[in-house]
Amino acid sequence: MSDNYCIGLDYGTNSVRAVIVNTATGEEIAESVWDYAHGEAGIIIDARDPNLARQHPQDYLDGARAVIKGALSHAGAVAGFDPRQVIGIGVDTTGSTPMPLARDGTPLAFSAELSDNPAAMAWLWKDHTSAAEAEEITASAEKSRPHFLAKCGGIYSSEWYWSKLLKCKRSAQAVFDAAHTWVEIADWIPARLCGISNPAQIKRGICAAGHKAMFHTDWGGYPDADFLAGLDPDLARLRASLPDVAYTVDQSAGLLSAEWAQQTGLPAGIPVAVGAFDAHLGGVGSGIRPGVLVKILGTSTCDMMVVPESQQLADIPGLCGIVPGSILPRHFGLEAGQSAVGDIFNWFVNYVQPGGTEKGSHQALTAAAEKLAPGQSGLLGLDWHNGNRTVLVDVRLTGAILGLTLHSRPEEIYRALVESTAFGARVIMERFEEYDQKVNEIVNCGGISVKNPMVMQIYADVMNRPLKIARSKQTPAVGAAMAGAVVAGVEAGGHDSFDSAIDAMTGTLDKQFTPINENARVYNRLYGLYRSMHDAFGVKGSQASLSGVMKELIDIRDKARGQ
Amino acid sequence: MSDNYCIGLDYGTNSVRAVIVNTATGEEIAESVWDYAHGEAGIIIDARDPNLARQHPQDYLDGARAVIKGALSHAGAVAGFDPRQVIGIGVDTTGSTPMPLARDGTPLAFSAELSDNPAAMAWLWKDHTSAAEAEEITASAEKSRPHFLAKCGGIYSSEWYWSKLLKCKRSAQAVFDAAHTWVEIADWIPARLCGISNPAQIKRGICAAGHKAMFHTDWGGYPDADFLAGLDPDLARLRASLPDVAYTVDQSAGLLSAEWAQQTGLPAGIPVAVGAFDAHLGGVGSGIRPGVLVKILGTSTCDMMVVPESQQLADIPGLCGIVPGSILPRHFGLEAGQSAVGDIFNWFVNYVQPGGTEKGSHQALTAAAEKLAPGQSGLLGLDWHNGNRTVLVDVRLTGAILGLTLHSRPEEIYRALVESTAFGARVIMERFEEYDQKVNEIVNCGGISVKNPMVMQIYADVMNRPLKIARSKQTPAVGAAMAGAVVAGVEAGGHDSFDSAIDAMTGTLDKQFTPINENARVYNRLYGLYRSMHDAFGVKGSQASLSGVMKELIDIRDKARGQ
Repeated sequence: MSDNYCIGLDYGTNSVRAVIVNTATGEEIAESVWDYAHGEAGIIIDARDPNLARQHPQDYLDGARAVIKGALSHAGAVAGFDPRQVIGIGVDTTGSTPMPLARDGTPLAFSAELSDNPAAMAWLWKDHTSAAEAEEITASAEKSRPHFLAKCGGIYSSEWYWSKLLKCKRSAQAVFDAAHTWVEIADWIPARLCGISNPAQIKRGICAAGHKAMFHTDWGGYPDADFLAGLDPDLARLRASLPDVAYTVDQSAGLLSAEWAQQTGLPAGIPVAVGAFDAHLGGVGSGIRPGVLVKILGTSTCDMMVVPESQQLADIPGLCGIVPGSILPRHFGLEAGQSAVGDIFNWFVNYVQPGGTEKGSHQALTAAAEKLAPGQSGLLGLDWHNGNRTVLVDVRLTGAILGLTLHSRPEEIYRALVESTAFGARVIMERFEEYDQKVNEIVNCGGISVKNPMVMQIYADVMNRPLKIARSKQTPAVGAAMAGAVVAGVEAGGHDSFDSAIDAMTGTLDKQFTPINENARVYNRLYGLYRSMHDAFGVKGSQASLSGVMKELIDIRDKARGQ
Repeated sequence: MSDNYCIGLDYGTNSVRAVIVNTATGEEIAESVWDYAHGEAGIIIDARDPNLARQHPQDYLDGARAVIKGALSHAGAVAGFDPRQVIGIGVDTTGSTPMPLARDGTPLAFSAELSDNPAAMAWLWKDHTSAAEAEEITASAEKSRPHFLAKCGGIYSSEWYWSKLLKCKRSAQAVFDAAHTWVEIADWIPARLCGISNPAQIKRGICAAGHKAMFHTDWGGYPDADFLAGLDPDLARLRASLPDVAYTVDQSAGLLSAEWAQQTGLPAGIPVAVGAFDAHLGGVGSGIRPGVLVKILGTSTCDMMVVPESQQLADIPGLCGIVPGSILPRHFGLEAGQSAVGDIFNWFVNYVQPGGTEKGSHQALTAAAEKLAPGQSGLLGLDWHNGNRTVLVDVRLTGAILGLTLHSRPEEIYRALVESTAFGARVIMERFEEYDQKVNEIVNCGGISVKNPMVMQIYADVMNRPLKIARSKQTPAVGAAMAGAVVAGVEAGGHDSFDSAIDAMTGTLDKQFTPINENARVYNRLYGLYRSMHDAFGVKGSQASLSGVMKELIDIRDKARGQ
């Protein structure tokens, strides 16, 4: 029996990557990366408005061609590999990254008169031009549709679908008027690979629709036209272009078109899975299943769990989203996260730059910080430099550091910043468990998880749980490839379910991070202080007794220093 | 009528300075500085114990000779100057800096067998080896002599007289046994200039005795033998060597001896004033009088007021000390202070060193910080990096910074640190006024007051008061010279009172710092937040509502940024 493969296409912020994965073993036999050609590092920006971040859809198509061909070419070096062994494709993208389409499905950015207009391009996830519109949507939903907000953590974000559409209407009416519909690139790219242009035939994925566009079967899909009309009558018009169903990633978006087959060298007619976001397919590629918490540790984090839809699941306060089928079919997808983790360490290194660029590098600070014992610095931080996503869901919170003395050193501050994010991670884990979602296993992926063992050990000690690391460094692409394998099906050499795909195609590294009891004890005390601060500053109307906090920090410090 | 002059001798931590001051105008016609010869920058240290800081008394004598001769030599260039016009001498020193003397009055450090023994030297003010003993004294006084503590802010310090004696007893018994008495260098140096060795004839100054050795006429002078015996029987023995009276600086310690006259070129027989601490004579040299708050701004601050003894004066909670006659005769001397101010800015520059030594210098950070508007950074600090001296009197407090984002810049943090110390200064001023000591005028002296206009403007805006700067850069030495002028008396060409000396010999610069209304308004809002934090973390048992703090900081920030 010969091997079979799937391709995962992973559309990131600056580049697209293709990974060819063995469906029986999860082995990644080849990959290829292509940097987007437009803008600065793939992002169209505006010197007058730092919140603007767009992408040109031409890059998505050129990128797909480049990386599929590139990966196939590299795979050619693998003995016995033949492109005909590729049986399916999956796609993950950033999001919410919606894009306006003409009535015939052509991106508006492909028309001559709009090709340079940023409003006609894809509005990248991190475009924050629509902050006012997001507040307006939140306020309106609070008043008339509170259930919409209950599924997305209580606040509608400027990074999301409807905020961006409303902003376009308000700031670029001509573009908005020219658009027949708006589609997430996670939906558009798979359709396009299948030669599907007609907007009515583009399958919308539940991951994007549910987490970012307030789609839920409880209220008949997308928000009702009345609600949208209250924001802007034109949004109600737009609503009519949207379907009533959304699909999970075990569904096929279509079959690879002859044209794409010819351009790439892949077999025509292989199925392409419905698309989803990188984080969610990263969860799949990390082996998510009930009881497993998958943490993607990067500049920010995404913390995910799944719960079978057969179970009763109450709303969990403070989670970013609870969407049926958004990660795995027939499971609620639970998404939480920290709005800044690596970004906080980067802030200290790049903005504060203690001692200059050399002494203040991640490497130097980590080397010095890992010599410190827990509690030794006497410092305690709040990891809210970019607000708090989970469980406080409040962008109007800020970072703090406490316990400073005339002798506090940069490596102590650096370690305290790391520890503060670990405390934030523990709050999320505890929130899952408070609502009966027992965390039996924690699998980490993302840059930090493989790059900084000190951070991982601190997380293990603070959370007091063993931490596993996903085997793949490209879990989103692997997750996308797994979706390809599932839509291909077991008879084609793929899988009949994600259960089977996860068993076969995912795993964790032998190296785990195990809590050190002595450290865990100290961190448990510090975590108590963190929670006091967390609730005092973060919970509206709270009354706090903080006069013991500094003294307890000193006490912990003195003990750690053996005094 | 020819001019008359007095000499002020100012014994600092690393050097001694002499200033020759015109008694009619306060003009400083000559000065001379001599660096102590022993130890590192004049301080004998111990690599094994960072808390140890001693000085060799030989430096005090060699220094006096060097700087008096040096100053006279420089004054020789002034037309018409003659050493015979010098009519009096005053002395200020650091403190509490006690030193053990043999029965005949010789410093133990002058004996061959003890000349290298740090325990036999002067225990410099910043020697912190006796932290445990200070706690023991505080605990004992709390139990049986709470009134002792009421006059010194509630906590007896490791920097003070009895802590150091007790530590010597515990750690260097042989030295302690060899000592007949212990004397502050502020008392020993004036006596020595007058050729007085006999310990019984050394006049003890009320400034040192009252602020550091729990001397008060209310309880018959120094602490009673019973109390001291409870700490250690040998302290009771030592108590017997101490007098029952202590003197104000308008009293003469004696007359300059023929030997000293010969060695220095000064006229023999001119009076030498009783000594006092540098800060207190700095207050005098800044023109202190009722209603005037004098602030010495340096690595830490000393904030002083005087109140006529004819007035009723309740204990003011949180002040470091209230001692009759400690600053001006017939006035209560009120001492408050911040345990770190310049030291906090130095910590940021020397320890954090943002961007390296060049970008992170005081100059560069100040240049960038002064471009910021109040509130613009969104940051708020607590200035407790070295604990809080006034009004919380708590060394077990630490610094904090709040409002950090992924964009917080070093100059914003630097400015927030400066602002936090200004808020701390306002707390002290308000405490004086809460207890009916109206502050009609504020005079600043010390390094920061002349070196950093940005800091002074921030203080003016935060305190919402005009700030004056003392005319002299050497206010302690000028204050000491004024004491010399008062003990010389009006008939000799000096003054009959400090009122007269202050009128004639002190003044402020034309340049004042006036509050800018717009800034004061913003800082008033920030100060409200500072007080919330101050009380929440600093006041035992307090209940706080802090959940609005970060949001209000953001609101202030957004307004300051014009958003």
